Amino acid sequence: MNKLERLVESNAFQRFVIAVIVINAITLGLETSPTAMAAAGGLLYALDRAALAVFVVEIALKLVVYRHNFFRSGWNVFDFLVVAITLLPTGEGLSVLRALRILRALRLVSVVPSMRKVVNALLRAIPGMTSVLTLLLLVFYVGAVMSTKLFGADFPEWFGSIGASFYTLFQVMTLESWSMGIVRPVMEVHPFAWMFFVVFILITTFAVLNLFIAIVVDAMNTTDHAEGEQTRALVKADHDELMAELRELRTEIAAMRARDR
Amino acid sequence: MNKLERLVESNAFQRFVIAVIVINAITLGLETSPTAMAAAGGLLYALDRAALAVFVVEIALKLVVYRHNFFRSGWNVFDFLVVAITLLPTGEGLSVLRALRILRALRLVSVVPSMRKVVNALLRAIPGMTSVLTLLLLVFYVGAVMSTKLFGADFPEWFGSIGASFYTLFQVMTLESWSMGIVRPVMEVHPFAWMFFVVFILITTFAVLNLFIAIVVDAMNTTDHAEGEQTRALVKADHDELMAELRELRTEIAAMRARDR
Amino acid sequence: MNKLERLVESNAFQRFVIAVIVINAITLGLETSPTAMAAAGGLLYALDRAALAVFVVEIALKLVVYRHNFFRSGWNVFDFLVVAITLLPTGEGLSVLRALRILRALRLVSVVPSMRKVVNALLRAIPGMTSVLTLLLLVFYVGAVMSTKLFGADFPEWFGSIGASFYTLFQVMTLESWSMGIVRPVMEVHPFAWMFFVVFILITTFAVLNLFIAIVVDAMNTTDHAEGEQTRALVKADHDELMAELRELRTEIAAMRARDR
Amino acid sequence: MNKLERLVESNAFQRFVIAVIVINAITLGLETSPTAMAAAGGLLYALDRAALAVFVVEIALKLVVYRHNFFRSGWNVFDFLVVAITLLPTGEGLSVLRALRILRALRLVSVVPSMRKVVNALLRAIPGMTSVLTLLLLVFYVGAVMSTKLFGADFPEWFGSIGASFYTLFQVMTLESWSMGIVRPVMEVHPFAWMFFVVFILITTFAVLNLFIAIVVDAMNTTDHAEGEQTRALVKADHDELMAELRELRTEIAAMRARDR
Repeated sequence: MNKLERLVESNAFQRFVIAVIVINAITLGLETSPTAMAAAGGLLYALDRAALAVFVVEIALKLVVYRHNFFRSGWNVFDFLVVAITLLPTGEGLSVLRALRILRALRLVSVVPSMRKVVNALLRAIPGMTSVLTLLLLVFYVGAVMSTKLFGADFPEWFGSIGASFYTLFQVMTLESWSMGIVRPVMEVHPFAWMFFVVFILITTFAVLNLFIAIVVDAMNTTDHAEGEQTRALVKADHDELMAELRELRTEIAAMRARDR
Repeated sequence: MNKLERLVESNAFQRFVIAVIVINAITLGLETSPTAMAAAGGLLYALDRAALAVFVVEIALKLVVYRHNFFRSGWNVFDFLVVAITLLPTGEGLSVLRALRILRALRLVSVVPSMRKVVNALLRAIPGMTSVLTLLLLVFYVGAVMSTKLFGADFPEWFGSIGASFYTLFQVMTLESWSMGIVRPVMEVHPFAWMFFVVFILITTFAVLNLFIAIVVDAMNTTDHAEGEQTRALVKADHDELMAELRELRTEIAAMRARDR
Repeated sequence: MNKLERLVESNAFQRFVIAVIVINAITLGLETSPTAMAAAGGLLYALDRAALAVFVVEIALKLVVYRHNFFRSGWNVFDFLVVAITLLPTGEGLSVLRALRILRALRLVSVVPSMRKVVNALLRAIPGMTSVLTLLLLVFYVGAVMSTKLFGADFPEWFGSIGASFYTLFQVMTLESWSMGIVRPVMEVHPFAWMFFVVFILITTFAVLNLFIAIVVDAMNTTDHAEGEQTRALVKADHDELMAELRELRTEIAAMRARDR
Repeated sequence: MNKLERLVESNAFQRFVIAVIVINAITLGLETSPTAMAAAGGLLYALDRAALAVFVVEIALKLVVYRHNFFRSGWNVFDFLVVAITLLPTGEGLSVLRALRILRALRLVSVVPSMRKVVNALLRAIPGMTSVLTLLLLVFYVGAVMSTKLFGADFPEWFGSIGASFYTLFQVMTLESWSMGIVRPVMEVHPFAWMFFVVFILITTFAVLNLFIAIVVDAMNTTDHAEGEQTRALVKADHDELMAELRELRTEIAAMRARDR
């Protein structure tokens, strides 16, 4: 067992897995090219099968070594899901599952430590955003219900259901064709529709902007605090040295007084 | 009376109101789905009526408890208005009022303290923006009057009145289809129109950007100041300790001198 | 003369001018409304004439009082130009000059001190941006010449001359319809056009982003420096107090030694 | 040789080269104007040839002076390439090479020191962005392969090959016509396409935003650190002065004690 663990955690093993991921990402990319498929379609499929086999063995080994601890790491869960998806039977209609195979290329992130760190840094920004995100979701829900009731009958393609309204409002929030594409046509039927959309844009843009600011301020805080801590550590060290010196002085003077007595 | 106040401020009461708000938000959402309405339209309406009754009773209770102090809190005024809107008679033409019922879902913000805090934080950013907002409004007014006079006759849909120009300039400021949709067609009649719009875009974008910067800088200031204060507090504490030590030393030396004399 | 100066600088005079500016801004806005013109067109024109007369007298008074010093302030030059524009003869073709009358509303900025401060703050950000702006202009010039030579013959409306290319590239930089509106059509003739435009977008967006960052960092610096200065002032004051105390101690000890000797 | 070096590094020589670059940039700009070409086409071509000759001589001189050290500076390599491009034979089909001549105007950046500094500052921001950029590239690759497989058959113009998908996804990331232009048409065939694109937009926008934040935070850090260092230097200097004073005091007291003994 110990031997297996050493194998799984060895650099050679990791480098081998990284190489397989990269090769698999390239073969999956080449599969989209008709010329590459005509020339070496069989080889590409074989390589894909081989890469999948490697991943299955790799994860099986890790499952044997770490057992239930395996699923404690989010990265392992991600690896497991990405490989498991491909093992599902791909019926005729399920070409989507075939397309999802390229998600395996994202395993690079979970396997290369420096990439993991970047993603972890990005994910760390999210907790600070949950409260504003919740608010944004609430505004979206209210906006979606309202626009469905107001404009759904006249513009079923854009506001026919809550889902359609959600999507359209997301488009409006990104400012894509919001006026020429959506609001001006709506205004021809509902002349005061601009009030709803302008307010919606102002609120959501302001909220998104504050999301953004929250991240900047958070990143800043860390820096500021580190600098402040460094200064305070110096002030404290200097102070301690001075106090030690002063105390020694006092001891000396006390000694003089004691002798004088 | 005291008993009523305790009831209104009890956690159980608050949790009950939150539950009603959530249920009401869901039923109002379901009302937009024809299948849900066909299956249980009567129930949904009944639930909505019931929720409304709960809100009316809740606000009535609060009015009895807090009396005129009730309206001192902006959140209470918001709750009151959102519920009052729904009590207005909904004539045939006033389907808008029916759509506004979903605004009650926003009561979640006023009832859940953590959400309130987020909104308060967002609102706190606004006073620092008023001066730039006023300037932006002035620029919009000047731009709207000018574009109405210059392009109103040829493009009545976009610049036919000050209101239409305001809306179009807002669209231009968000950069949505400003060139292909608005300015290029206008330039076919007024070849120098680009001067007006490019200047307008540069000014408003720069002003909005400064709005944004003002918020970041403001948030930063608070952080910076807190760190600075912490450092200064340490410096001051250390200094006081040193001074105390030195003064004691001096007293001791003074005592020695006094005896030597 | 002294009396005139006191009049011009009096609060009452300033408030009167502000009132006239606001009224004039409103009448100029009403002129765009056909109903208002039909009802009181004569009155509106009369009010405009009266406001203009007030401004001419105001500036004449200031010219008499301050003489050539009048033009030392950029705000005065702005006021002078805005009023002078309207005094130009408005030929039939020059309806543009009539539209420029609304620029007088911007005099609010030059007359209200708090608005002046905001604009001054915005303008103060510009010097820190000149170097990046120069670079941006150079990139635009190179881009305009290149796109005119490459695409001018096939797309004269967008890239027919350096001026047209400048405008189109500005549109591309704002990301408005850059792909669906401009680059995809161009790519049908020049399949590699995307290389030019993607590089152009990446460079200009990155430069604009750095403009923005320069402003934030600059604003931050001021704050940081103020906090740092405050801390350092405290450190210095504390230090001086400690040194004074220590020196006194030393004097005392020196006195003891002197007596001991 | 020493003489040549002095010539090449003299201010007069540099100013002459700058002048030639500016004149050449203007003549290349004028070449795009048919009227200018009709009036003085021959002169413009002659000036261009002359400018090119000056550049060739300039670089030849520098090559003679600095020899292989010449290519150590990225700016020199840039100058060399920009001039070398123009010396390539311009076949009939290669009008692109003729258009690239205007790149010489960018030599202004490499020759004017203040411009160099700006570009260096911009480039310095890039290393801090590599990790997020790599991640972004990986996301783009996965997105491109996936969208080619999913939508390539139905929308060959947008997703027909990995290259086409890359370009379309870049457009989607800039939010240009992403919904009305791309996703809504795609959704008519693949109703769940919005899931792919909304996720893609959220991920890439968030990553780009973090790129941006990384630059701001980095710029901030430098400032913060400088302020912190300044404070710490003062604290250290003050501390050293205090310690020196205290040590002298102690020496004096030690001397007293020694004599007392």
